Amino acid sequence: MIIIMKPNASGEAISKVTKLIESRGLQAHLSHGDEVTIVGVVGDKTKLGGINFEVTEGVDRVVSVTESYKLVNKKFHPEDSVIPVGNTTIGPKTFTVMAGPCAVENREMLLASAETVKKAGATFLRGGAYKPRTSPYSFQGLEEEGLKYMKEARDATGLNIISEVTSLRALETAVKYVDMLQIGARNMQNFELLKEVGRSGVPVLLKRGLAATVEEWLNAAEYIISEGNPNIVLCERGIRTYERSTRNTLDLSAVLTVKAKSHLPIIVDPSHATGVRAYIEPLSKAAAAVGADGIMVEVHPCPSCAMSDGPQSLTFEQFETMMQHLKPYVELAGRA
Amino acid sequence: MIIIMKPNASGEAISKVTKLIESRGLQAHLSHGDEVTIVGVVGDKTKLGGINFEVTEGVDRVVSVTESYKLVNKKFHPEDSVIPVGNTTIGPKTFTVMAGPCAVENREMLLASAETVKKAGATFLRGGAYKPRTSPYSFQGLEEEGLKYMKEARDATGLNIISEVTSLRALETAVKYVDMLQIGARNMQNFELLKEVGRSGVPVLLKRGLAATVEEWLNAAEYIISEGNPNIVLCERGIRTYERSTRNTLDLSAVLTVKAKSHLPIIVDPSHATGVRAYIEPLSKAAAAVGADGIMVEVHPCPSCAMSDGPQSLTFEQFETMMQHLKPYVELAGRA
Amino acid sequence: MIIIMKPNASGEAISKVTKLIESRGLQAHLSHGDEVTIVGVVGDKTKLGGINFEVTEGVDRVVSVTESYKLVNKKFHPEDSVIPVGNTTIGPKTFTVMAGPCAVENREMLLASAETVKKAGATFLRGGAYKPRTSPYSFQGLEEEGLKYMKEARDATGLNIISEVTSLRALETAVKYVDMLQIGARNMQNFELLKEVGRSGVPVLLKRGLAATVEEWLNAAEYIISEGNPNIVLCERGIRTYERSTRNTLDLSAVLTVKAKSHLPIIVDPSHATGVRAYIEPLSKAAAAVGADGIMVEVHPCPSCAMSDGPQSLTFEQFETMMQHLKPYVELAGRA
Amino acid sequence: MIIIMKPNASGEAISKVTKLIESRGLQAHLSHGDEVTIVGVVGDKTKLGGINFEVTEGVDRVVSVTESYKLVNKKFHPEDSVIPVGNTTIGPKTFTVMAGPCAVENREMLLASAETVKKAGATFLRGGAYKPRTSPYSFQGLEEEGLKYMKEARDATGLNIISEVTSLRALETAVKYVDMLQIGARNMQNFELLKEVGRSGVPVLLKRGLAATVEEWLNAAEYIISEGNPNIVLCERGIRTYERSTRNTLDLSAVLTVKAKSHLPIIVDPSHATGVRAYIEPLSKAAAAVGADGIMVEVHPCPSCAMSDGPQSLTFEQFETMMQHLKPYVELAGRA
Repeated sequence: MIIIMKPNASGEAISKVTKLIESRGLQAHLSHGDEVTIVGVVGDKTKLGGINFEVTEGVDRVVSVTESYKLVNKKFHPEDSVIPVGNTTIGPKTFTVMAGPCAVENREMLLASAETVKKAGATFLRGGAYKPRTSPYSFQGLEEEGLKYMKEARDATGLNIISEVTSLRALETAVKYVDMLQIGARNMQNFELLKEVGRSGVPVLLKRGLAATVEEWLNAAEYIISEGNPNIVLCERGIRTYERSTRNTLDLSAVLTVKAKSHLPIIVDPSHATGVRAYIEPLSKAAAAVGADGIMVEVHPCPSCAMSDGPQSLTFEQFETMMQHLKPYVELAGRA
Repeated sequence: MIIIMKPNASGEAISKVTKLIESRGLQAHLSHGDEVTIVGVVGDKTKLGGINFEVTEGVDRVVSVTESYKLVNKKFHPEDSVIPVGNTTIGPKTFTVMAGPCAVENREMLLASAETVKKAGATFLRGGAYKPRTSPYSFQGLEEEGLKYMKEARDATGLNIISEVTSLRALETAVKYVDMLQIGARNMQNFELLKEVGRSGVPVLLKRGLAATVEEWLNAAEYIISEGNPNIVLCERGIRTYERSTRNTLDLSAVLTVKAKSHLPIIVDPSHATGVRAYIEPLSKAAAAVGADGIMVEVHPCPSCAMSDGPQSLTFEQFETMMQHLKPYVELAGRA
Repeated sequence: MIIIMKPNASGEAISKVTKLIESRGLQAHLSHGDEVTIVGVVGDKTKLGGINFEVTEGVDRVVSVTESYKLVNKKFHPEDSVIPVGNTTIGPKTFTVMAGPCAVENREMLLASAETVKKAGATFLRGGAYKPRTSPYSFQGLEEEGLKYMKEARDATGLNIISEVTSLRALETAVKYVDMLQIGARNMQNFELLKEVGRSGVPVLLKRGLAATVEEWLNAAEYIISEGNPNIVLCERGIRTYERSTRNTLDLSAVLTVKAKSHLPIIVDPSHATGVRAYIEPLSKAAAAVGADGIMVEVHPCPSCAMSDGPQSLTFEQFETMMQHLKPYVELAGRA
Repeated sequence: MIIIMKPNASGEAISKVTKLIESRGLQAHLSHGDEVTIVGVVGDKTKLGGINFEVTEGVDRVVSVTESYKLVNKKFHPEDSVIPVGNTTIGPKTFTVMAGPCAVENREMLLASAETVKKAGATFLRGGAYKPRTSPYSFQGLEEEGLKYMKEARDATGLNIISEVTSLRALETAVKYVDMLQIGARNMQNFELLKEVGRSGVPVLLKRGLAATVEEWLNAAEYIISEGNPNIVLCERGIRTYERSTRNTLDLSAVLTVKAKSHLPIIVDPSHATGVRAYIEPLSKAAAAVGADGIMVEVHPCPSCAMSDGPQSLTFEQFETMMQHLKPYVELAGRA
């Protein structure tokens, strides 16, 4: 931690800061510049809990030197993690494709979707049973019934299944069915839910919040891992910006930032990022090219009659074509 | 609802759209322009559930004419609501001041804060017992113990008390103590929590999400009111933008947008919006001037040793001064 | 300047950084922390031109301690500036009202506008002669003819006149007519134009760029002042955010940030910030309450037939009413 | 154009809108819905100049059906354009690589850069002679001297040369030297400059503004083309968002939006988008994968002593490696 004093800070003010630091058994290193004095803090920063240097007299600002997340931090775990999920793993050697409908609408559409995505090469079936919807009057999901169909689809196809949980109640039910839990963008900082997912030990896909920084996202992952669950995969799904020609703005650089700062795998969801069906294939190729560990895409037997997110869903045929076109990019990226 | 066809949409495509509309018992009105054809949909839009015109052949885009929120919508309830809470009301004739520490840290600091804010003119004591913190290693709140101190403070001062709930578990406990629940920015779209707050019937302050549009915010309020709880007050607390000289960007225009679209009261939180203590007083005056129904500010006996958000907390003395300086602005705005 | 080394930076790397600093005659102060080493640079930073520590081996990041703007910086000029313009001044004791049409459309409408805003209490007439428009097919302004009408309006009313310049050519013409130049949001970083305005010595209103940080804005002002022109007033006019219920998001906190960092006056333009006529009056009151040095608002004899920005223009009657309602807020803020 | 009336609009108000439309020789089509009435306008919208329906009584809002840009619009020119520049073309069959230093610093570094990028496979040399810098105290470029070195580099290598113009004065000089002009992000809405570039007829690379929507960007291109210059290539260079782990947020979806709405080619600049050297190669691959028509990257003989943007510049060796790694992605995308 570095404390930057104001240009006009008195010797007394500087001395007070120094004493505060030393009172907790840490060391203060002073650099007197031409304009300002800088105080470097040496030692375990957590011992300073309860002191707000920002509001101490004469202090201009405080610069943090180390990240608040530790267990997901690449600095302390330099090798990329490989996350075991169901009958497979997610990590730096593979390119995982998760596909399926936005919401599980009924048994038939789900089983048909499962067969199709399996045949086309996906290894995960996605399908929402608990749907977080902007309006209370929109379809809210089949809940446990939907999860039962998911399980049936897994039994029929061997696909691993992933589904979103939006509450502790949903979590309690979902762990009985799914291979992987999903925390959606709106719940990225639902800390109670994160802690409980951490205690469950079940592999989890943690989507980035609508306007979350990479740092906040990694801190959210830290909530899960610090409760004992290291089986975390991140998912970039677009961030909110001023641009509205796509639903969100896909931040592919975030894949690189995450990989520079953390050892966790990260996949990309171009469906929610853009909301535009025609952009899914090219952005999936770009995700492979940039080094992502996989993608999550929406597929629906009849997008024009989907109960949610139809405009961004691929038809079965479009998904099959995309998977063929995507293959050489995945291979070029050195993944299988 | 208006459906805008593509310039090159065939007569067949237009006809298909028309038939889809009529198949649900609605009427389609066509306007053939020089460049494009527009289809107006007349009738109850909810009957179109299951049809995604955006992905129907020949359709360029769909424009919504009516809002998805109904019960909080000013169109159907033109008079401003007055919300009864504890021993007072929040609404267009009054300017409610909620003040207190970010977090309840111990009994003494809370009781001292309560006495001070009461004497200076506040009618609500705020204090967090369940704290949503970015890092799992930060202070997470005293939980029920904190709520007990809040209740004691109410008994001692007559202040109404408000505290944040971050989960169904916290909600269950909090309703036994508080006069008003608070839903924080991170939980604005925690729909399970919103529904349960709706069922509780307890007055609630709904903060705007970090990057929520006014429309999403009003839809979040609709989740609460549609479960039977009309006692909702909104709180603008700054939105996330590219500018970082303040923690968030206070959007005072949102007070006006909310008042134009909804009958619910809205207050302003300049503490979280800016994170800068020196900006609280001038922005509180501006909140009164723009027509807000009150403010929520952080006050702490010793900001430099606060366990959270110290830099943005006012000292007791600063709060008393602010309240004196604020008074004529409140009077000028025609409020008491 | 502070250089933060990577956790694994070698002694050699640290030594190389130190030598680079010393090679320019500056001093390096080292703080060896538990995790990282920090290098404080003492001396005149400009001597380091040509060294990019960010890409020097072992360096994690560089933190700037001092601002790049000097002449507009409050640190070196603590008193608020009073800017003389035409027959008046802009600064901390007064609340300047600039009003008039978005664009000068013809002689009649301008003279009528001038009389009205003068009578209602404005001291500046605004009116665009060179209009920067998003589409090339929109009305682009009357150019010099418009400036002539502006001058005529000044002669008739005694109002000071302000008009936007969008190019060196426009500047050359405008200086012959106006009391104050305006640099619009789109040209805030048109550095050639800023320099030439600096050389002209004519008072200038510098609007904030659409997505400019306060720091970039003050650096833009530094371009003008460093060419010899200290007569600069800033104008907050809303920033671009994800929220679209207003055209831009008015950032009233920026008034406070600017006043904390600079000695220049700052006014607020609620017309362009929101694009909504009904919001102009309440936001003008808020601008006075927060401590702004004035406002700029659009007034038009017939907003429904204005050639640009009609929806945000006040009618003559609305402007007169607003000025009456605004008066007590201005007085309360201790201004005249 | 569609005019949506307020729910409570009177018959008189609707009739007034209808008459306004018909008074200009256009037709009004009414759809009376259950809640609101919608008025479709049929005919040439430009005839409505001078009427602001947004402020006409009873009108809720106006929805535009057609884009304001015409000549760059794909609707009226469905085939992708191929832009001839110097000894080559930019368009859908090729992947153009523009590389070189941020700023031309001296003759030696430029010639060395030119040889290197030529040998590695680039066909354009970039190099700034007129530098738009945030602070007036930063290096502002060698101006005409820099352009002379650029020309010398072209003569020596056969590379096409591109350089930024920031003013009419710079433009006047640059057209004597360069194969392609560059309009930087800060000047995307410097309309005077755009018009003059349009009149020059010289091929131009138009970078996206810091916070420009795709629509504003295409309107900026329309300024150039409407003056007679169709030789326009767009360049996505990252947009300003709340996320600060990269300098800007690269918006690769914009490549797809541009290609859906316009026939102009578009390239990607990962150097300015991220400011992080290590991200250039993976994002260049992603640019090829998503369908961009090329890239622009910064290369410098000694990034740690570059006078501007060192941290994001590749060394010669890094550039050569990147070009080898990029090649199979370009081939896979079906380009040469």
